[in-house]
Amino acid sequence: MERLNKITLSHGAGGRLMHDLIKGLFLKELENPFLSELDDASMLNIGKEEFLFTTDSYVVSPLFFPGGDIGELSIYGTVNDLSVCGARPLYISVGMIAEEGLDMRTLRRVVKSIKTASKRARVHIVTGDMKVVEKGSCDKLFINTSGVGQKIRKTNLTLNNVKVGDRVIISGPIGQHGVSILASREGLDFSSKVKSDCAPLNDLIARLLKSPRGIRFMRDPTRGGLATTLNEFVDGRLFGIILDEADIPVSGGVRSVCELLGFDPLYMANEGRVVIIASEDESKKALSALKNHPQGRGAKVIGEITKDYRGKVCLKTKAGGLRLVKMLTGEQLPRIC
Amino acid sequence: MERLNKITLSHGAGGRLMHDLIKGLFLKELENPFLSELDDASMLNIGKEEFLFTTDSYVVSPLFFPGGDIGELSIYGTVNDLSVCGARPLYISVGMIAEEGLDMRTLRRVVKSIKTASKRARVHIVTGDMKVVEKGSCDKLFINTSGVGQKIRKTNLTLNNVKVGDRVIISGPIGQHGVSILASREGLDFSSKVKSDCAPLNDLIARLLKSPRGIRFMRDPTRGGLATTLNEFVDGRLFGIILDEADIPVSGGVRSVCELLGFDPLYMANEGRVVIIASEDESKKALSALKNHPQGRGAKVIGEITKDYRGKVCLKTKAGGLRLVKMLTGEQLPRIC
Repeated sequence: MERLNKITLSHGAGGRLMHDLIKGLFLKELENPFLSELDDASMLNIGKEEFLFTTDSYVVSPLFFPGGDIGELSIYGTVNDLSVCGARPLYISVGMIAEEGLDMRTLRRVVKSIKTASKRARVHIVTGDMKVVEKGSCDKLFINTSGVGQKIRKTNLTLNNVKVGDRVIISGPIGQHGVSILASREGLDFSSKVKSDCAPLNDLIARLLKSPRGIRFMRDPTRGGLATTLNEFVDGRLFGIILDEADIPVSGGVRSVCELLGFDPLYMANEGRVVIIASEDESKKALSALKNHPQGRGAKVIGEITKDYRGKVCLKTKAGGLRLVKMLTGEQLPRIC
Repeated sequence: MERLNKITLSHGAGGRLMHDLIKGLFLKELENPFLSELDDASMLNIGKEEFLFTTDSYVVSPLFFPGGDIGELSIYGTVNDLSVCGARPLYISVGMIAEEGLDMRTLRRVVKSIKTASKRARVHIVTGDMKVVEKGSCDKLFINTSGVGQKIRKTNLTLNNVKVGDRVIISGPIGQHGVSILASREGLDFSSKVKSDCAPLNDLIARLLKSPRGIRFMRDPTRGGLATTLNEFVDGRLFGIILDEADIPVSGGVRSVCELLGFDPLYMANEGRVVIIASEDESKKALSALKNHPQGRGAKVIGEITKDYRGKVCLKTKAGGLRLVKMLTGEQLPRIC
């Protein structure tokens, strides 16, 4: 009980404890119609226009890792949160908290990286803030980005439309980001072989939403990994998800590091993947739209919506068994993003 | 020179070094039409609607101080940045970075305070994020808020409209916030007598903007104090500002603490004050609009726009002298907001 009187790393890990904290404290206290869903972005109105608004803080350690850095991550993470909610990302704010003594070259490198990332994702950095705290009061550099996007017309992405028989599609191999951070922290020799998947999803998703019929819902499986995101999909619903382990794409590098260190790729963070629920009829079309895009070449159908296992995610293992896949409990890796 | 290869506390203090960093690095690298002005909020479009977008991180220490806390500050600060730019604040995001081991009661108290503040300022908290870092990697709790507001029609607040003879008005006594933080850090006995002015300005400013004619420009003088904000007004302009020291409202408590510790109230942060440039003709009307509002009772005309001292702020001292008032150089107080 003592433990629950203090904030633990698990409260920020994206799993069960964080969900409970958000529901039990933030949603309870700050209740309003916009915040009532545990969502990646909030749909709002100004005058006649509908737009989406989202925020994320980035505390990743190390600041630079194979395949990316905190600058790129802070742009792509927020771009992706808007994109999976059916918005075209437009404007991004950048708020930095730097530790006294941070090397100016490090800051410069991160800002250049933000520039490159914002060009790649075709968003404008429109406002910013810089705070500096005394040495020892933060670890090098934290970045918050918030983003505003315009709702893409004709889309109505909601879990309420999900039907039994719908397919679950992942846009590429899982766990790359988590493993790249893990390996660079552990100083593993083969760390350079596993690169983060850190990338903007807006172009890929815009392609997919050109014919949005049959696209029910999508999310980017970041903190907590694919397992946690799929559990969010089924939480409190009348349907479950059945996954086929043999179909879930995992690279050799991710598999090796996970086996070596005792992690499960299903819980490893992704920063450039999207998991989609599409109708059975439209799933082939969706899959080929993904595969025709450089960022979706590794897309696969990995499971389907079932009326069995209501509110649960189950995995048909390669060995022929059936295993319950729960939401992340406790801390997998701190400061993954 | 060595010093400039590292980030110092002064880079985050709101003064000259921060301005140089923002101009030399951020604006240079991230250049775009929206970011080209060093402004509190950025004016943007979605479809046919104009709105403003702003962001700020709050790292104030201590978390709780006489007259407020980090929760209130994080809401009012962002509400005020939107308000002074002529927007009606609508939606706020809250991103928290907490230190492992933070007392849950502290977090709960801050969230309750955010709730109270958002009700008082009539804004909705619409999206959020929670990260936790290891003990020692941040100091208790940092909060980023970003805000979206709708532009108030008919207003066109710009320094380009400022004319010689225009009046400079402050909405109340200066330096309360800075001194409340300073006194509570120093453990001064009379700390409880000086309360932060931390408050939302949207209602006061909306009142003022009901008849916006003659209201040229306004800002909230936060980090760097009134002196720094007025220097931002005149920077690179063909006009200067002449202040009358005798007219600048400073409470007895602020004066005592500043004298005791060797600080100048002109550089002490405010978190619930607005400094306004109004035409000579309309300045009386503006002053009475302010004085008729509970938050503007202490409003005073403190100076005027002059064609002398171009690009500079000068102070007629009580002793009858004339003193140049520069932008804050170096660090006045770290982690004031």
